[in-house]
Amino acid sequence: MQAFPDDPAPPMIRQHNRRPDEMRPVSLERHYTRHAEGSVLVAFGDTRVLCNATVEDRVPGFLYRKKRGWVTAEYSMLPRSTGSRTAREAVRGKQSGRTQEIQRLIARSLRAAIDPEALGERTITVDCDVIQADGGTRTASITGGFVALADAVGWMLKRGRITSDPLIRSVASVSVGICGGTAITDLDYNEDSQADADMNVVMDDAGNFIEVQGTAELQPFSRELLDAMLRQAETACSNLFEIQRDVLSPD
Amino acid sequence: MQAFPDDPAPPMIRQHNRRPDEMRPVSLERHYTRHAEGSVLVAFGDTRVLCNATVEDRVPGFLYRKKRGWVTAEYSMLPRSTGSRTAREAVRGKQSGRTQEIQRLIARSLRAAIDPEALGERTITVDCDVIQADGGTRTASITGGFVALADAVGWMLKRGRITSDPLIRSVASVSVGICGGTAITDLDYNEDSQADADMNVVMDDAGNFIEVQGTAELQPFSRELLDAMLRQAETACSNLFEIQRDVLSPD
Amino acid sequence: MQAFPDDPAPPMIRQHNRRPDEMRPVSLERHYTRHAEGSVLVAFGDTRVLCNATVEDRVPGFLYRKKRGWVTAEYSMLPRSTGSRTAREAVRGKQSGRTQEIQRLIARSLRAAIDPEALGERTITVDCDVIQADGGTRTASITGGFVALADAVGWMLKRGRITSDPLIRSVASVSVGICGGTAITDLDYNEDSQADADMNVVMDDAGNFIEVQGTAELQPFSRELLDAMLRQAETACSNLFEIQRDVLSPD
Amino acid sequence: MQAFPDDPAPPMIRQHNRRPDEMRPVSLERHYTRHAEGSVLVAFGDTRVLCNATVEDRVPGFLYRKKRGWVTAEYSMLPRSTGSRTAREAVRGKQSGRTQEIQRLIARSLRAAIDPEALGERTITVDCDVIQADGGTRTASITGGFVALADAVGWMLKRGRITSDPLIRSVASVSVGICGGTAITDLDYNEDSQADADMNVVMDDAGNFIEVQGTAELQPFSRELLDAMLRQAETACSNLFEIQRDVLSPD
Amino acid sequence: MQAFPDDPAPPMIRQHNRRPDEMRPVSLERHYTRHAEGSVLVAFGDTRVLCNATVEDRVPGFLYRKKRGWVTAEYSMLPRSTGSRTAREAVRGKQSGRTQEIQRLIARSLRAAIDPEALGERTITVDCDVIQADGGTRTASITGGFVALADAVGWMLKRGRITSDPLIRSVASVSVGICGGTAITDLDYNEDSQADADMNVVMDDAGNFIEVQGTAELQPFSRELLDAMLRQAETACSNLFEIQRDVLSPD
Amino acid sequence: MQAFPDDPAPPMIRQHNRRPDEMRPVSLERHYTRHAEGSVLVAFGDTRVLCNATVEDRVPGFLYRKKRGWVTAEYSMLPRSTGSRTAREAVRGKQSGRTQEIQRLIARSLRAAIDPEALGERTITVDCDVIQADGGTRTASITGGFVALADAVGWMLKRGRITSDPLIRSVASVSVGICGGTAITDLDYNEDSQADADMNVVMDDAGNFIEVQGTAELQPFSRELLDAMLRQAETACSNLFEIQRDVLSPD
Repeated sequence: MQAFPDDPAPPMIRQHNRRPDEMRPVSLERHYTRHAEGSVLVAFGDTRVLCNATVEDRVPGFLYRKKRGWVTAEYSMLPRSTGSRTAREAVRGKQSGRTQEIQRLIARSLRAAIDPEALGERTITVDCDVIQADGGTRTASITGGFVALADAVGWMLKRGRITSDPLIRSVASVSVGICGGTAITDLDYNEDSQADADMNVVMDDAGNFIEVQGTAELQPFSRELLDAMLRQAETACSNLFEIQRDVLSPD
Repeated sequence: MQAFPDDPAPPMIRQHNRRPDEMRPVSLERHYTRHAEGSVLVAFGDTRVLCNATVEDRVPGFLYRKKRGWVTAEYSMLPRSTGSRTAREAVRGKQSGRTQEIQRLIARSLRAAIDPEALGERTITVDCDVIQADGGTRTASITGGFVALADAVGWMLKRGRITSDPLIRSVASVSVGICGGTAITDLDYNEDSQADADMNVVMDDAGNFIEVQGTAELQPFSRELLDAMLRQAETACSNLFEIQRDVLSPD
Repeated sequence: MQAFPDDPAPPMIRQHNRRPDEMRPVSLERHYTRHAEGSVLVAFGDTRVLCNATVEDRVPGFLYRKKRGWVTAEYSMLPRSTGSRTAREAVRGKQSGRTQEIQRLIARSLRAAIDPEALGERTITVDCDVIQADGGTRTASITGGFVALADAVGWMLKRGRITSDPLIRSVASVSVGICGGTAITDLDYNEDSQADADMNVVMDDAGNFIEVQGTAELQPFSRELLDAMLRQAETACSNLFEIQRDVLSPD
Repeated sequence: MQAFPDDPAPPMIRQHNRRPDEMRPVSLERHYTRHAEGSVLVAFGDTRVLCNATVEDRVPGFLYRKKRGWVTAEYSMLPRSTGSRTAREAVRGKQSGRTQEIQRLIARSLRAAIDPEALGERTITVDCDVIQADGGTRTASITGGFVALADAVGWMLKRGRITSDPLIRSVASVSVGICGGTAITDLDYNEDSQADADMNVVMDDAGNFIEVQGTAELQPFSRELLDAMLRQAETACSNLFEIQRDVLSPD
Repeated sequence: MQAFPDDPAPPMIRQHNRRPDEMRPVSLERHYTRHAEGSVLVAFGDTRVLCNATVEDRVPGFLYRKKRGWVTAEYSMLPRSTGSRTAREAVRGKQSGRTQEIQRLIARSLRAAIDPEALGERTITVDCDVIQADGGTRTASITGGFVALADAVGWMLKRGRITSDPLIRSVASVSVGICGGTAITDLDYNEDSQADADMNVVMDDAGNFIEVQGTAELQPFSRELLDAMLRQAETACSNLFEIQRDVLSPD
Repeated sequence: MQAFPDDPAPPMIRQHNRRPDEMRPVSLERHYTRHAEGSVLVAFGDTRVLCNATVEDRVPGFLYRKKRGWVTAEYSMLPRSTGSRTAREAVRGKQSGRTQEIQRLIARSLRAAIDPEALGERTITVDCDVIQADGGTRTASITGGFVALADAVGWMLKRGRITSDPLIRSVASVSVGICGGTAITDLDYNEDSQADADMNVVMDDAGNFIEVQGTAELQPFSRELLDAMLRQAETACSNLFEIQRDVLSPD
């Protein structure tokens, strides 16, 4: 739903006086539920997503007998995770285009963290269920989903299901955008709905890019602003990798 | 999936040394998420259900211009709320018969708590999403859903949306069953899968019955055992009404 | 759709001067169609249901190689079995929650009649198609479905498909309810739509309970009224077992 | 599933010594169920179809405010109307191509019997549910459906819902086919599965054609055989119009 | 949508001064796309259909290990092949009854051209996608689909996949109809929407009939007009066989 | 389906000796079909997509009475546009996640070209149907869809449906990727399936970005390679704008 108004957006004052390049408080709570092999409640500010990783000894048909594993993801919002109630997709009888696009992004991103041959003929499914939404649910899902994935890998290693560690890199994600001509980091819902453009960036801990998805919402953006967004994403992701390392280290 | 073996089930020793008529620890955490008009995380032991009540100024078609409101419910289990992963209903494209049966039971039960004329032309939808399952998800949903419903009513009263209180009774629910010839209260998953029979009972705080749903799983049950189950349900529900009153009183 | 009015329902005068505990005329016509292994047209008054039992030499996946059989059921109303036309479920693209709930009840009830090991790796499907509806379609379906099931078992025994009789008990069902403070038996459509509460009871011929499903439609009901309904159901079912025996004996 | 073998089919001996141009016994039982405005059980030999006509005071969107009525039809086979059980379309979640093709044919045929302006802004839906199938279910449905339609029209005239009779012609239908080089009339299931070709013909009582649907199943057919089939269809339909007149006259 | 008005249709003047028995210009462009084993763009006047034939080394379940092949077809209209946009069936979630009826007709017709035993355990799927519609899309699909089928057969013969030619006859199709009491050939969209009746005829190159599907749209038609339509169809099909031979000969 | 092999890809020799930054031959054929308000056949090498723009005087519900128009898009591949046949989405009953993701991208991109207020309460739907696929179907769809959109706008202006031109910028798109450590432009299917990374870039004719969607397929990519891909995309799009201008100028 784009309009391309002529007047520039007003200078943005962020909630809680956040600086343009400042993320919201991030937390990662491991072992949140007891059944899943990896279970992490991730919060980016008021956005809270439960990421559960499940290990199963089977692979999709196209990998049958290829001696390789698979990582996939599903995404869903609880009906009242949002300001007004969203109809339940199970009742409507199908997942929306938005849902499918997001879960394909999460799955591709997490797949980059795993060596499929070391995983062996197993599937890890990461379910990302949004308990409360305030912008950035897909980037929180990827960042928290990585920790759930790491826990599921640890679960397999501890039980001797696999002998070499299939984790080949860390993966984290953040959104960046343009408001009032300025690049900002980690948009909340209110900022997201006013932004001229926004971009979801998925990176690895070597500073390389796994996904870059930028969209002009209200105004096409220049190469300069694209570069500014990329720089802020690089900084934020390096911050997220530190948080992931901290929370994973005690084990 | 019934078999009717001749040998009686072994004498049941309950986890944590529960007595036959003893419920698991019950907790009700209000205001669990911030968007819903009523939001309660209910726990019956390891079973945890998030109950969110949403108020909307519209009614289904069959109540159009009848000056009456409506209460409905939806139920879902997160894919990994269970011991092994359950396929997501939004992906399969429809709700299972079990899901529909449960959400119809929750909705009928909560409807009994409300005077539809005092509610006016509004719908309250109670979403019950199972975060972690260990038996009794439908009885926990009804018991916690009532508190979310009461909070949604309080939200309307505080804002002057309605002037008279539409809550006409409290509603709570518990499961009872027969194991090894003995009636037991509030079955966990393990007990439920071994029980000869189980019954979900929904009551009001005047000691009357709203729903009674008993099923012989492995063995038809006598009138005597039916009466024993009903007695234990009466005791347990009166206990649940006390917990509901406690948690609702501070407001 | 519950309202809980204060004024008691008027004293009930039943059609054809039925006593409160009197069933409508019941008939069971065997061999109604020629293809099915068991085919019974059951009538409870104006309610007429065609119950066809089909024997197939396969079992659902979860019973694969378990040396056990399965009994299942499907239920449907012809579009004009009702006073106004009901949309065809095949056109709407799915079975309603009510349909699924009813067919799950019929299936569980009939499963109680069969020893799955004596049945062997076979499935018996009982299709209950309502030709004309006037209340009590699910209880008529169970009562008539049992006779169709017995005929399908007889068909297998006569042909030597099985050598020991898998029928371990008879199953019948009746509805009871509360109208104007009085318990009544076998409600017709008109009574059902005015009742304060109704209950479907499934029993075996030893006087034990297989299913008890009671619902307060307009008013929660006391333990006393619950007991009164159960007593009337016990009497009516014992009557139904006699009718089943009569109709099955001539063979 | 066509094969085009070189050897001619063996000379056909019809069941019950039917002559090639002889129909099976036809019966039309009116007022078969009590709710529908027209309700007819039609039998062509062992084929039995329940045709219920429903009158509703509404029209589909494309006729909104056009002062014209609509006639439509739906068709379904009970799962065990056939020799082996057919999966229920409501369970599979959609009507098959065959079902849709047949109900479109029935609807077009019955529409030819009605002046839509005299009907006024009403819809008549004719539900054709096959109780038992032995070939010719679509031609029985059209022939019986016409009588149900006439009864629904009579119901409207008697109640003054319409003042002029919208019935403008009678409609009946029969199948013809080619077996062993000979044209035969009203094929039963066994004949239908061996026929080289078959054709469904719908006619009016003035001897004109409403639908002609001929299909080469095993062998393309010559113009001579096509003419022979059409002649036999003309004879059989004129017979059916007499039976329809007889059954409709007593009223 | 039939009305049966009393006044005869006005004398028809056809576009481009076509005679009543004259077809529109027909063209068949082979090798239209590069991936399909047979790819033909067929035009009947402004009607343009892309027919792609695909060879696959598998058969449907009911032919498993029967040493026979299968020919099937699918049909679809591009959303804007029509004067106003038609909703995409993939978006609505199902194929319409009309689509299924047409693709079943195309498949049956093309099946008549093939000896399934000579084809061996292979499936040929002919996809008919309407690029531009102006009446007669199903007859163009059959006529062009036959050439795509022949090319797919040639592709298999050239590569030695099969050793004997499974093509046993040519198949072509044309529509005929009645306008203003006159039989006309190959109706365009405008004629089709005014015709009293129309008929699709599928023939083989020996002058026999494979399918005859005639429908009275506005007026039941006499045997004389039926015969006139059949004669014109015979002439037109013999013309189409010549065009098919010409286009297939250069290879 | 990612593997992250250690060995670098072999030096890439492109088909037809394309340079790394060279596009395939691009053609845009306007007025390809006669019904649509804009109809363009676009080719990027062997990739051919038919883009039809439809103007309708209605808007989706969320724009009702907002005095603004809407631009949307749908995307589909003909079953045999690909090397092996892809199942038809209308038959499978839903659009794949890939299809929805692509059509959402096309729609957002084309929306950027239009001032919704100047369009008024109208919807323009751009249908992109892939006739033949060889990589880059989404970028060809956007580039050709823009010309169809411009033609639909011209159609409205010529007829006085709108008075001011709602086209505010030109939009074009190209894919870029990384093969063997080198950035390449406009990948064909073969290149796409071997690339380490690929990116779809949508730009406007002022050199700003509308969409940037980069994905690491086999290897996360550095900021340097990201910058190289962006530079080549800028060059290629400026080339595409010239071709668009040429083809649109003669009118």
